[in-house]
Amino acid sequence: MWADLHPVGRSPDTSGYTRFAWSGADLACREWFAAAATRRGLDITVDRNGNQWAWGGDPDSGDAVVTGSHLDSVPDGGAFDGPLGVVSAFAALDLLRDRGVRPVRPFAVVNFADEEGARFGVPCAGSRLMTGGLDHDRARSLRDADGSTMAEAMSSAGHDPSHLGRDVETLGRIGTFVELHVEQGRALVDFDAAVGVASSIRAHGRWRLDLHGEANHAGTTRLADRDDPMLRLAAAVLAARESAEQRAAVATIGKVHVRPGGTNAIPSLVRAWLDARGGDEQSVRRVVAAVGEAAGAELVEESWSPEVAFGHELREHVSGLLGGAPVLATGAGHDAGVLAGAGVPTAMLFVRNPTGVSHSPAEHAETDDCLAGVEALATVLTDLLLTEQLGAESTDATETP
Amino acid sequence: MWADLHPVGRSPDTSGYTRFAWSGADLACREWFAAAATRRGLDITVDRNGNQWAWGGDPDSGDAVVTGSHLDSVPDGGAFDGPLGVVSAFAALDLLRDRGVRPVRPFAVVNFADEEGARFGVPCAGSRLMTGGLDHDRARSLRDADGSTMAEAMSSAGHDPSHLGRDVETLGRIGTFVELHVEQGRALVDFDAAVGVASSIRAHGRWRLDLHGEANHAGTTRLADRDDPMLRLAAAVLAARESAEQRAAVATIGKVHVRPGGTNAIPSLVRAWLDARGGDEQSVRRVVAAVGEAAGAELVEESWSPEVAFGHELREHVSGLLGGAPVLATGAGHDAGVLAGAGVPTAMLFVRNPTGVSHSPAEHAETDDCLAGVEALATVLTDLLLTEQLGAESTDATETP
Repeated sequence: MWADLHPVGRSPDTSGYTRFAWSGADLACREWFAAAATRRGLDITVDRNGNQWAWGGDPDSGDAVVTGSHLDSVPDGGAFDGPLGVVSAFAALDLLRDRGVRPVRPFAVVNFADEEGARFGVPCAGSRLMTGGLDHDRARSLRDADGSTMAEAMSSAGHDPSHLGRDVETLGRIGTFVELHVEQGRALVDFDAAVGVASSIRAHGRWRLDLHGEANHAGTTRLADRDDPMLRLAAAVLAARESAEQRAAVATIGKVHVRPGGTNAIPSLVRAWLDARGGDEQSVRRVVAAVGEAAGAELVEESWSPEVAFGHELREHVSGLLGGAPVLATGAGHDAGVLAGAGVPTAMLFVRNPTGVSHSPAEHAETDDCLAGVEALATVLTDLLLTEQLGAESTDATETP
Repeated sequence: MWADLHPVGRSPDTSGYTRFAWSGADLACREWFAAAATRRGLDITVDRNGNQWAWGGDPDSGDAVVTGSHLDSVPDGGAFDGPLGVVSAFAALDLLRDRGVRPVRPFAVVNFADEEGARFGVPCAGSRLMTGGLDHDRARSLRDADGSTMAEAMSSAGHDPSHLGRDVETLGRIGTFVELHVEQGRALVDFDAAVGVASSIRAHGRWRLDLHGEANHAGTTRLADRDDPMLRLAAAVLAARESAEQRAAVATIGKVHVRPGGTNAIPSLVRAWLDARGGDEQSVRRVVAAVGEAAGAELVEESWSPEVAFGHELREHVSGLLGGAPVLATGAGHDAGVLAGAGVPTAMLFVRNPTGVSHSPAEHAETDDCLAGVEALATVLTDLLLTEQLGAESTDATETP
């Protein structure tokens, strides 16, 4: 199953993956998803926001157990970030079938659209649209580096963008969501554990910084006459690091576009993106303010996610099912965080990453650890699928299949 | 004549021009050149290195008077940098014809290929190949941002790259070269003069800076664990400015590429280009050393041009012909500088630029000043074309047509 997905969007130079939302590589991943669902007799639906679902049982009977992750990637990313959660979801359901587990609730595997936000700037776009955290008009008009809007990209990919937006019906089907993901740090190495459980996602956001200057000749314009925005970028980069250190936060400028971008031309525009994350909103806001002050420019917020704590009861229950798996916070955003923020009972499992490297071709997880992840997910799903509704959040009547 | 060239490679958004060497826009400019030559009964030749010539008289009779400039541009550049010199060359020859001037020497208008070096990194590539200042093997293998080599780009454009290299035959035809160019500073505004004469071109070069880091997740990688090359870029940018200030030089980082270029990924590579220029080689070398030290990386030299002084006798003669036109140094490189460095008697005329802005859509020259430039060029050409060989550099026998 994993092998079919292996070559999609893979660079022969770096072995990294580039699977931007709604690109050809992403569509190939979505076809793979549909084929995996069909082979298992699951019913495929695509919701208004382009998220893909593979259903077992009647979705509208309510209180479903949903698992999955995303298949899109950052530019030149790793093989595991996203796909591991989807592949493990199918693999865990295979285990349940082989073991004769008979679910008393409907269940689904989900592939959330555009989790990385690598193309249009807003991460978790598919899940945020569903919960209403991302406005549909704004989403449609977001542009990629080539100037295409999200609406155009969706249309080209065969998804009608006219119905984007808060989707109470689809959201209401989810009784419990469990996302498995490769760890993006080295905490599980220190715990000497193959699998861990998430406690919270730190507050995080993305901001765009437009530094305008005056394009001019690099050879003939006196230093005193220049308005060179590259100098302000330098100040912003250093301020981001310094301020993040002071606030126990992290801050990164990893994407920079320079116009006109000629060796012998002073730039007219340096556009840079800041990713900042911290334990609480205030720390992150202070980092952003410091960067704006150093750059002499206002930052434009492209996305913001407050700190999300996964429900304590479910988290402890899951950790217990897994023999006391370690519980850890993460600085990475996930669709699970968006759902938890919207009140859906949610748990996350992490699979050990020996180097902690992620968003890089060097991202890795050992096969034994991946198999332990599938086993852990199967354990959690078995427990949930054999148990009637846990919480009181669902307003739908529950009919067991 | 000017009007036909106006829309080629022009951006509807910025009104700037992007005419990279051997691109479709450049080919359209080359067709325009050929048409302008044909209309005037001039003979078109293209030399081994892709420079275009429009000949009047027998080129091989020696000691020709050549005028012209280039038609390629920086990304999003102005309308005048390059084309003004070519258009003025044709216009000045039209004046000579109308005035019944009967040349005693052959003459040509030249369009030098790839003057800006915007695509392959080496400015004045066409003239440098001709003089031997750019090695033909190196030239062929230079790559653009899309990974195409110069040889591939030339082949696609219909020019055979297998004969690139020092071209003694073509070089030997040039008795005197006169290049007219829009000024790229504001000296002529201070002189209150429409036209000036160049004294020298300052030492200048381009260097590439490859800053390697470790790609990793922007949210989960601790600051202490990062190897983020963006911080070293910031240090390089600030060092370039500070060091240039100390050395009365100029230094610019106007082109930056970041890999993988994701908002939520620490870069694995920041590649930046430094343009540095100064009154002498030592000042420029010190700036480059300071940037390398700040960045903790070696800079790769992509081009280097020592200071070039235009011949004193010819320069004073030309200034005298123009009623004592002001004589000024420039920080911009030109094909005229390459030829002067190779021992060709060379003069440059500048046309006033009211704002001094260049390499920008805002680059401008008033129509009256452009017409004064044509008149000045006609005066200089008339003088040269009615005079037998001035210098002793030419080794060919001189036959007047």
